[in-house]
Amino acid sequence: MQHTARARDAGLACGTLPTGELNSIADVPGVRVGHRTLVHGEIRTGVTAVVPHGGNLYREKPVAAVHVLNGFGKSAGLMQVEELGTIETPILLTNTLTVGTCCTALVRHAIEHNSDIGRETATVNPVVFECNDGYLNDIQTLAVTEGDARAALANASSRFDVGSVGAGCGMSTFGFKGGIGTSSRRLDLDGQSFHLGVLVLSNFGRAGDLRLPGGRVVAPPEAERERPATEKGSIIIIAATDIPLSDRQLKRVIRRSGVGLARLGTFWGHGSGDIALGFTTANVLSHDEKAALVDIRILNEDRIDLLFEAMADSTQEAVLDALVAAGTMTGRSGHYRPALTDALSLIGPVTS
Amino acid sequence: MQHTARARDAGLACGTLPTGELNSIADVPGVRVGHRTLVHGEIRTGVTAVVPHGGNLYREKPVAAVHVLNGFGKSAGLMQVEELGTIETPILLTNTLTVGTCCTALVRHAIEHNSDIGRETATVNPVVFECNDGYLNDIQTLAVTEGDARAALANASSRFDVGSVGAGCGMSTFGFKGGIGTSSRRLDLDGQSFHLGVLVLSNFGRAGDLRLPGGRVVAPPEAERERPATEKGSIIIIAATDIPLSDRQLKRVIRRSGVGLARLGTFWGHGSGDIALGFTTANVLSHDEKAALVDIRILNEDRIDLLFEAMADSTQEAVLDALVAAGTMTGRSGHYRPALTDALSLIGPVTS
Amino acid sequence: MQHTARARDAGLACGTLPTGELNSIADVPGVRVGHRTLVHGEIRTGVTAVVPHGGNLYREKPVAAVHVLNGFGKSAGLMQVEELGTIETPILLTNTLTVGTCCTALVRHAIEHNSDIGRETATVNPVVFECNDGYLNDIQTLAVTEGDARAALANASSRFDVGSVGAGCGMSTFGFKGGIGTSSRRLDLDGQSFHLGVLVLSNFGRAGDLRLPGGRVVAPPEAERERPATEKGSIIIIAATDIPLSDRQLKRVIRRSGVGLARLGTFWGHGSGDIALGFTTANVLSHDEKAALVDIRILNEDRIDLLFEAMADSTQEAVLDALVAAGTMTGRSGHYRPALTDALSLIGPVTS
Amino acid sequence: MQHTARARDAGLACGTLPTGELNSIADVPGVRVGHRTLVHGEIRTGVTAVVPHGGNLYREKPVAAVHVLNGFGKSAGLMQVEELGTIETPILLTNTLTVGTCCTALVRHAIEHNSDIGRETATVNPVVFECNDGYLNDIQTLAVTEGDARAALANASSRFDVGSVGAGCGMSTFGFKGGIGTSSRRLDLDGQSFHLGVLVLSNFGRAGDLRLPGGRVVAPPEAERERPATEKGSIIIIAATDIPLSDRQLKRVIRRSGVGLARLGTFWGHGSGDIALGFTTANVLSHDEKAALVDIRILNEDRIDLLFEAMADSTQEAVLDALVAAGTMTGRSGHYRPALTDALSLIGPVTS
Repeated sequence: MQHTARARDAGLACGTLPTGELNSIADVPGVRVGHRTLVHGEIRTGVTAVVPHGGNLYREKPVAAVHVLNGFGKSAGLMQVEELGTIETPILLTNTLTVGTCCTALVRHAIEHNSDIGRETATVNPVVFECNDGYLNDIQTLAVTEGDARAALANASSRFDVGSVGAGCGMSTFGFKGGIGTSSRRLDLDGQSFHLGVLVLSNFGRAGDLRLPGGRVVAPPEAERERPATEKGSIIIIAATDIPLSDRQLKRVIRRSGVGLARLGTFWGHGSGDIALGFTTANVLSHDEKAALVDIRILNEDRIDLLFEAMADSTQEAVLDALVAAGTMTGRSGHYRPALTDALSLIGPVTS
Repeated sequence: MQHTARARDAGLACGTLPTGELNSIADVPGVRVGHRTLVHGEIRTGVTAVVPHGGNLYREKPVAAVHVLNGFGKSAGLMQVEELGTIETPILLTNTLTVGTCCTALVRHAIEHNSDIGRETATVNPVVFECNDGYLNDIQTLAVTEGDARAALANASSRFDVGSVGAGCGMSTFGFKGGIGTSSRRLDLDGQSFHLGVLVLSNFGRAGDLRLPGGRVVAPPEAERERPATEKGSIIIIAATDIPLSDRQLKRVIRRSGVGLARLGTFWGHGSGDIALGFTTANVLSHDEKAALVDIRILNEDRIDLLFEAMADSTQEAVLDALVAAGTMTGRSGHYRPALTDALSLIGPVTS
Repeated sequence: MQHTARARDAGLACGTLPTGELNSIADVPGVRVGHRTLVHGEIRTGVTAVVPHGGNLYREKPVAAVHVLNGFGKSAGLMQVEELGTIETPILLTNTLTVGTCCTALVRHAIEHNSDIGRETATVNPVVFECNDGYLNDIQTLAVTEGDARAALANASSRFDVGSVGAGCGMSTFGFKGGIGTSSRRLDLDGQSFHLGVLVLSNFGRAGDLRLPGGRVVAPPEAERERPATEKGSIIIIAATDIPLSDRQLKRVIRRSGVGLARLGTFWGHGSGDIALGFTTANVLSHDEKAALVDIRILNEDRIDLLFEAMADSTQEAVLDALVAAGTMTGRSGHYRPALTDALSLIGPVTS
Repeated sequence: MQHTARARDAGLACGTLPTGELNSIADVPGVRVGHRTLVHGEIRTGVTAVVPHGGNLYREKPVAAVHVLNGFGKSAGLMQVEELGTIETPILLTNTLTVGTCCTALVRHAIEHNSDIGRETATVNPVVFECNDGYLNDIQTLAVTEGDARAALANASSRFDVGSVGAGCGMSTFGFKGGIGTSSRRLDLDGQSFHLGVLVLSNFGRAGDLRLPGGRVVAPPEAERERPATEKGSIIIIAATDIPLSDRQLKRVIRRSGVGLARLGTFWGHGSGDIALGFTTANVLSHDEKAALVDIRILNEDRIDLLFEAMADSTQEAVLDALVAAGTMTGRSGHYRPALTDALSLIGPVTS
């Protein structure tokens, strides 16, 4: 996380639950994040990788779920997650038009580590999410290469930057510069500590609709807004936890990402692909399982409200985290996005 | 609506779109609402009927859609709406344990007006929604009769009460007395005026979580709260419009009820059955259609954000409407719910 | 099962997997079935109860799933099963217009055994399925009472009749007399024996479309057919197993009921409410669970094809079982349904 | 279709409805199909393009729907079709590991014809389907290039080959050589003729399970079977019609592809990605629509059984069409697939 400002540095905290130590998706043990950022000429884009655990993901598949808040989007791999309740590759985030490239990169990466794919065993389901960074980035150039995707994977670490990095490089949020943000909550169950962490690729919201945790509305200066100001873009929400959950329980939890978004002022616009994926590192299914029956652990569903609250709060704060860290940016055709922090400094101290 | 106070009387308006003349679901021409309220002994319950149009609903079926925000609930009739995209009875709201009774009432009502049901033509799909009023009402008595359901239908009018009436009689919201609320928005498309109206049966939210439109949090006095304060109960959202929509478009619109709820402070709790149904009076399909092909009109999907915003705002305001109108109530076993308006008067003028 | 003829007595076996000892849903230990049959005047209807285990179902909830093959139907309770992955009452089957009555009966039954319902704990989700028996039964009379539902529950036994009994009394299938049928398969996993059993309420199929396992088409005599012969009616498929499965796995398994139906000659007609529910007695969740985390066992998904095959075969055979056992029936307005066995005797020995 | 043998040439017809003139998806006016076939060294793969109409698909979007029979697959673009009910690119079929490449090809193709994509207007949703041809093809080489995808698009014609061509080059079905097949039905509504056409990429089914329309089971010679014989592979079903339908109606129709598959002997195996997409050329929505409301035409739902039957029959026959046309093939590592026609010639004349 280095020296970047975080949401809480700007006084923007959400909810009352305690955060994890890093206030990051990497508070879930084993989860790592890597970026590859592309800034040159009219290009403002990149790739972000979320790696659920340090092992071979194809061999050890985390239980997972997806939830589509608004399906105007081009993310790949969701159908099989829905059917089988697992993921089997790292998760890549990128711009809308390079989903195909990132899928191919994940396929080759999986084959390198599993020479039986497509020969002695099944194929592989790459999971790639996207937002449209076309306002700041010349998206038609398809600037992201397979090498960029590999670089993001290679950079994965429990310490990672937020803001205008990786896939977040050219993204916008409520008329401000957006990007990558993260947040987490520590959850205690029967005396044991767990974490739920969220990472967002934030690129949604209409200028003028952003509402801070205390209720205040913050808008970019009139002169700096895109015209017409429409609710478009998208947001991708990746949730990780070490709490043992079934895929159905995970799906219920990540659905509450929509609560966090609504609190921020969006109504989940028509043109916004708002998609959530969640996984648990506590239930990992072996590709090579020989036993007919497998023991797993799930949550007593009566306790799930705690996770719902953590999910709503973490999603809300992760978006604010992206906004605070992102800074200003000028991109394609001189398009400009102001920074939330500049607008905040004009309105004085924020208290939620 | 008579003399009952409304949300706007208490300074609680949501969003910037204009309301309909009545700020009610009945701003959609032809829509009527009727109540039957039961208050005696330990009983605080009732039935509310929403009647989509003045004709024979079995013969002239409005295009409709359902959306399940959280499916911990016992509402009836959703599966067929999902499959066929229409409703064919009035909509009844009641308490959880008398859904069966209200289904039977709707079946008999439909047979009376359509003697061919189950003989020369198909059967009928009653649509009944519910919330659990067990805190104030002795729900185990199953106090609602078929006669009560019929009375609610018979009382249907474009002018109707809100607050602790009909199915809303024994309901609670964020620790305050809840019940029935309504709100509407006027929407102009290509120079023509339409309406989107919402009616809620509001019985959800944890004491202390309620957030007013301006951001202020309002809680019932500590001494007057249920213990433990959990997010339970439920909310039913009925949306009506005279804008021509397909069932898929309607489903997208009513999904935004979740935005209005999230703004109010809920995270769509585990134990809350949060269900939305929407219908349009502009597309009505004939049970006795003879032609193979039928012309309908739908919305240019690029305009749908206007409806999303109206849906979010109207849902949020309809819940506040229920809270403002409801007053205090003492019910079963001396259980008590304070009124939001009393709490508001303590905190002074509200401005959003 | 007494003296009723079964599908295999008529040479109608499906697939190559071994059956359970009873070739019945009751081969799954603890599962019991009870009927209440109503035959008088123009009435040909009834109630069938499937009881998943001998304990208190509200306290010990079996993991369950539903799948809607075609949602033109009025079954109740599906939404909560979908959300929570459990059932908490016995399952009742009845005619379309008495679903409400059976819901109420299940509610009262649950309250009698759990006095905290709706007072100190949550409410209860009755699960009731239906088909339209209006060709043979005067369905408008709503002949089934709460007492009839209670009688079906009281009659539950591991030995039960098939054919024109219980809810199956007035049902029709491919123009023949239909009703209740059952079948099971024994499945061996890692040297341990389990069972998958199916019970159907069969009331679907167009006269002339029935195809026997060997490929032969069997039709009722022209003179004895309803006119026009349409694909209407419905079929309810209840599946039980003692194999440990997650709700997602159960949903995948019961979806294969559609395969069994398609083999029989139907194309899942528009007017047919084709609904499946499955439960496992191997994963039962406690209503009063205190621990935050719960251990369950699931199937290694690589073995699930065995269950898919068993589900397809058992569904197909259970329908044939209903047809073979049902006999002829004359009902409302002199309407008549011939018996499959009479048609079979005309075409000579059947071999699959 | 040239000189290739078709299913009906081998006596394999399904159902009683009349076929279109070509018995092909191209009986729907405007629909064209193109192939690019790759056979060299260990490579047996390719691309097939289905082009819904002759105009600019991004500007004129056909109403469409998807249905997932079994989601163990990697097809791309389904989420947005589900949300918006339209497609906006041609449909590509290929092998599992080159979905990404084909997505990128479709993106570039769309940009070439619509220079505003990602700049002044939205991005584009490529629709790509896949099966795993890894038994005959060295799938790890990712042999398909963007150029191959472009070639398939360029080759699109109303006259096209079936069998081991395009994406069907390396596919297998019930242990025989599979591939591309097609079939259609002519449907008369109120005196007007319409068509429903199906194209399949057939790569599913366990050796020994294939059942011909008359009920006969046909298996490849023991010596020529893959070991172990598992139900794996996948099948993609593309349906086209010129009947005016809503997206919901289309979804109901294409769901009946599962009936056709079940009749052929599969139980929709765990490892098989069985996916259907349907579109109608009768309802095409303009990307540049200015009016707020749009007139469309839909089917009187009471007539939909005719389309269900046509869908089931056409799917079943299209698979047989692929099997009859495919011939034998030796591929990767000397793997061999026999031809159905050879097996048929051994068992004598087929009559359904």
